[in-house]
Amino acid sequence: MLGLDIGFFNHLLPTPAVPALCRDPCTDHTPSAPLCRALTMVNETQHTCSASSSSRSDGGSSSGSESSKDNSRCSTPVLDLDRHERLREKMRRRQDAGDRWFSLEFFPPRTANAAVNLISRFDRMGAGGPLFIDVTWHPAGDPGSDKETSSMIIANTAVNYCGLETILHMTCCNQTKDDITGHLQKAKRLGLKNIMALRGDPSGEEWEEEVDGFNYAVDLVKHIRNEFDDYFDICVAGYPKGHPEAESYEADLRHLKEKVFAGADFIITQLFFQPETFLKFMKDCQAIGITCPIIPGIFPIQGYHSLRQLVKLSKLEVPQEIKDVIEPIKDNDAAIRNYGVELAVSMCRELLDSGMVHGLHFYTLNREVATTEVLKRLGLWKEDPRRPLPWAVSAHPKRRVEDVRPIFWASRPKSYIYRTQEWDDFPNGRWGNSSSPAFGELKDYYLFYLKSKSPREELLKMWGEELTSEESVFEVFTCYITGEPNRNGYKVTCMPWNDDPLATETNLLKDELERVNRRGILTINSQPNINGKPSTDPIVGWGPSGGYVFQKAYLEFFTSSEIVTALLKVLKKYELRVNYHIVNVKGQNITNAPDLQPNAVTWGIFPGREIIQPTVVDPVSFLSWKDEAFALWIEQWAKLYEEESPSRMIIQYIHDNYYLVNLVDNDFPLENCLWQVVEDTFELLNSPTQQ
Amino acid sequence: MLGLDIGFFNHLLPTPAVPALCRDPCTDHTPSAPLCRALTMVNETQHTCSASSSSRSDGGSSSGSESSKDNSRCSTPVLDLDRHERLREKMRRRQDAGDRWFSLEFFPPRTANAAVNLISRFDRMGAGGPLFIDVTWHPAGDPGSDKETSSMIIANTAVNYCGLETILHMTCCNQTKDDITGHLQKAKRLGLKNIMALRGDPSGEEWEEEVDGFNYAVDLVKHIRNEFDDYFDICVAGYPKGHPEAESYEADLRHLKEKVFAGADFIITQLFFQPETFLKFMKDCQAIGITCPIIPGIFPIQGYHSLRQLVKLSKLEVPQEIKDVIEPIKDNDAAIRNYGVELAVSMCRELLDSGMVHGLHFYTLNREVATTEVLKRLGLWKEDPRRPLPWAVSAHPKRRVEDVRPIFWASRPKSYIYRTQEWDDFPNGRWGNSSSPAFGELKDYYLFYLKSKSPREELLKMWGEELTSEESVFEVFTCYITGEPNRNGYKVTCMPWNDDPLATETNLLKDELERVNRRGILTINSQPNINGKPSTDPIVGWGPSGGYVFQKAYLEFFTSSEIVTALLKVLKKYELRVNYHIVNVKGQNITNAPDLQPNAVTWGIFPGREIIQPTVVDPVSFLSWKDEAFALWIEQWAKLYEEESPSRMIIQYIHDNYYLVNLVDNDFPLENCLWQVVEDTFELLNSPTQQ
Repeated sequence: MLGLDIGFFNHLLPTPAVPALCRDPCTDHTPSAPLCRALTMVNETQHTCSASSSSRSDGGSSSGSESSKDNSRCSTPVLDLDRHERLREKMRRRQDAGDRWFSLEFFPPRTANAAVNLISRFDRMGAGGPLFIDVTWHPAGDPGSDKETSSMIIANTAVNYCGLETILHMTCCNQTKDDITGHLQKAKRLGLKNIMALRGDPSGEEWEEEVDGFNYAVDLVKHIRNEFDDYFDICVAGYPKGHPEAESYEADLRHLKEKVFAGADFIITQLFFQPETFLKFMKDCQAIGITCPIIPGIFPIQGYHSLRQLVKLSKLEVPQEIKDVIEPIKDNDAAIRNYGVELAVSMCRELLDSGMVHGLHFYTLNREVATTEVLKRLGLWKEDPRRPLPWAVSAHPKRRVEDVRPIFWASRPKSYIYRTQEWDDFPNGRWGNSSSPAFGELKDYYLFYLKSKSPREELLKMWGEELTSEESVFEVFTCYITGEPNRNGYKVTCMPWNDDPLATETNLLKDELERVNRRGILTINSQPNINGKPSTDPIVGWGPSGGYVFQKAYLEFFTSSEIVTALLKVLKKYELRVNYHIVNVKGQNITNAPDLQPNAVTWGIFPGREIIQPTVVDPVSFLSWKDEAFALWIEQWAKLYEEESPSRMIIQYIHDNYYLVNLVDNDFPLENCLWQVVEDTFELLNSPTQQ
Repeated sequence: MLGLDIGFFNHLLPTPAVPALCRDPCTDHTPSAPLCRALTMVNETQHTCSASSSSRSDGGSSSGSESSKDNSRCSTPVLDLDRHERLREKMRRRQDAGDRWFSLEFFPPRTANAAVNLISRFDRMGAGGPLFIDVTWHPAGDPGSDKETSSMIIANTAVNYCGLETILHMTCCNQTKDDITGHLQKAKRLGLKNIMALRGDPSGEEWEEEVDGFNYAVDLVKHIRNEFDDYFDICVAGYPKGHPEAESYEADLRHLKEKVFAGADFIITQLFFQPETFLKFMKDCQAIGITCPIIPGIFPIQGYHSLRQLVKLSKLEVPQEIKDVIEPIKDNDAAIRNYGVELAVSMCRELLDSGMVHGLHFYTLNREVATTEVLKRLGLWKEDPRRPLPWAVSAHPKRRVEDVRPIFWASRPKSYIYRTQEWDDFPNGRWGNSSSPAFGELKDYYLFYLKSKSPREELLKMWGEELTSEESVFEVFTCYITGEPNRNGYKVTCMPWNDDPLATETNLLKDELERVNRRGILTINSQPNINGKPSTDPIVGWGPSGGYVFQKAYLEFFTSSEIVTALLKVLKKYELRVNYHIVNVKGQNITNAPDLQPNAVTWGIFPGREIIQPTVVDPVSFLSWKDEAFALWIEQWAKLYEEESPSRMIIQYIHDNYYLVNLVDNDFPLENCLWQVVEDTFELLNSPTQQ
């Protein structure tokens, strides 16, 4: 964040030094027209889309109900209000409800590998339930470009692929109006909805104000409101001690007020070391008429050197009592971090207890441990966050209505999002309604947000330095399921089709999965049948509380043509109960699905709602998934080995000759019959009379 | 049917005699272009929308799957194939599947009251599962007009309000091309899809062929194909003994072939008395290249006089063995009907056993008993026809995709169809998507298909010649529920909101309903909760077999403001479990429904399909229903009494002061709590401390 610390926090990493400190004064203006529009719209939105479920007895005559019909009708069930609100509305709703929340700040990484790791961190820290994250603008890192390390692309990934409400920082000094408009347009196109408007660090010693240029953050705020009306939520920076270069604390407060009156929606502050600092600042802001939310920036001290560098760059003074504690333990990283956590927890508690603070903003320095610890100690980390849907939602505005996906990408949601990013509309209820079911090609299997987090050597250890037969492949699958080490003593923690360890839900099927994988039913996706568990069930639950969730048993696997031949005979016995799709890489396609209709395999019933059916087995999408699933054999596994090597030829053989099979047991209230189908298949294969 | 018998069967009713017999020759033409197009389209349609669920292993490569994606995607789950097929496809599918079927012919009634009765007969006989019905063209009855007795409107009612596949007869002689085109356009607009093309009875003694006019049925067939391409399925008449006025049997066969080659899709024959007659005719047709379906017309003899009149008009000869049986019993109607049934059953059996006949067409003479008896004896009457959806579907083509309706009109489906007839699109899955939720006004409560079948005197006996208090109204409701006679000894078999006796499903709730109605909870709609019963369940099942159906408990009633006040207090305890809407005639509207979203209260899960949720409690529609439900108090009940009479004032008081309440128990897997809600309400009312 914070003009000031864009430079600052990036500098904590070993980066070329750039002038770090700048001031962020603002010009003097009265509230602008766009701001008035913005405020009006907040009220309107709240009126038509309120979360209230209280009784209304306000004589809604027929004309009254007419108007509510026009405005309040939602075209899709609003399962998760969060997905339909803008950030400032969420903030206000949480505040009104007395909820406390937190947010997390990250800076863009310096390498593509670091970007892959950061995305994983987004996923892990996103699970704790931040209200939003923000990504700093790194002027030296080509921040608006398409590089995987740019601020723009990191923010894009957070929104679209990790489903996080995200604020993109943007600085304005030393940039043309056209550049800035271009960045904003691109941000909008990518689905970003929030901007932190900053001046940034002027480059060069002799910086001077440019006439008609963007000299201060307030200019950027005005520009955003002029050019983009109310599209973006705008955040600005506040300095609890006053900006180090401001004429005075009072002058700095006036600058802040100007930024707010120019159209900013809320304020995040620079870090501070004592709660009184923030509380005084907040009262001072309110005294001069700043009424928007002001969110304290929290910096858990994580090490001696980063703190020293911080002090040097920010010109903030570290209170003596903190220095007194730290100096004696300066070489003990763990001790300093523990102290930093204690200090942060105690400061946060004081802030929250004041009743003036509802949300806390954390400067993470891209690290997890300290911030997560503080949040857990405060009880703000949502250990088991409710899933709005059984898959990872995207926060792109056009995906707000997305409430159904094919089951095939269950373990590769980012691939699904990537391949459907060009869709204009998302299926709003029925998969069959999709006006544009064409999937984008996965042209580059190393798209950074899809890249395996494990390096080649690690993959070889897990999947085998040398494969000697199809059976050695069966073993890899089996070890992945069981969690047991493979013959070389390594655990198999990921597979080409699953970048993560087994889902908790899959553990319910572990024994059966192990048994069938050993025998060459190479499972890549499965779910148990569920007949009406509460929506709050910790393993299979999703959606609002008070509902019931259901599933049909599903099993998807690769297997040999010999097994498929027997399976097809067995499936005749289950014709009315089991739907199947069986394809090979050449496109041969055997199915008993009626008329290529989707089969709903996950659905939920909630109080006062329409039925939600978020997961389907869609026959048409299966053919796109098939291409991806087969390609993963080659791209992620075969290519680990030398060309012409026996290991590579074994994978290639499987790719060329195996079938991809999916099975649905439609009788969800009965015991899952799919295991029996597989048993029957092996029995048939082993019977002497089988042909 | 049948040029010949349009006149004939109408004449069995006491109608002014018009020249009865005419021939129906046809001109000589080779197959026309529209016919070729028609045949091509049949094949295409069958290809892309086949009901086959057999395995496909025909190497669907990715390009193959692309094309199937474009063509085979359905925008709504095809629950009931029947709704998506045209008549000739249904006929072919049933024939291919080896199914046997029947159809029923009716003629337009002469009075509006008779029309109301005929519509009830459509509902009753429709329950037996005819493949289609047909309505004769009655030239003397202004057949294309908007009168409730016109052929056009009766056919319209059968299609739209009774959900029956319907063929409208149409004759062409003595009519201008413009008249005929106008009739056809109107038929298309009303949703009629099938025409029986006939010449009709020339009026006047000196009928002569008109140059360029419509002289023969074949001219009408050609005209339909020229002007409407393949829109209509066309049926033509065949004469198993040859047309009485044809030059010869062979010439008549050639005329028939010309009609078929001009674009007719199938043939229905004139009646006959011996199965050999039909079987010979069919072979002769095949021999000269007529390959379309030929459906035998069956006439169960129902009385001596109607048979005599038939013989006179049709010039058909009654075989001597039939005459020998009938003459001795000519004054015993029951005996003749029994004999007619025996004769028809034995002839039908012989026809079906020949293997050449798959469907039977019955000339009902608008009577039920004999035809129903024959069909039951043959095993063709579907005693318990599967419901495709839990409500009565309409057969209008634009309603093919209709798969969700508000629950409120459950007992008044014809009213719902009427009030939504102007909708262009039907909600295809989610009620909220409806682009046009505006309901048409019920301007005339005596729209004939909504009219009570009971006359005023009967209604007074049921609902009370004289009401003395609100309690006497409670009694009427209670008697309707219990089936017990009222204080004057009359059973209450209908109510303003329910024109039929209680649904079987409602019987499940009978005891509870009786208890609450006695105390002034005047129920007009209810359903029990269902947690996954088989879709074939005889009481609550619907949809294809192999599925499971679910319901949330629902209760809708009128009640006093005193009870509503207590109810609202009680409902606070059930806030998370029960959704409610409480309105009065002035539009006061109290609800805890979230954001005016619909609440799905009936849904089904089927093999290989998306979820179907055919019934919702839709808050917006409820306000339209409320107007209708309150108006029924006045229009159907209060108006039975003199103005200013105490009885009328009591109903008026209820209309003005009562509330209409609906309650949904969202916890469908638990025991229905709505009865407890009502009990709690009365307990609160009776407790001394309640205020």
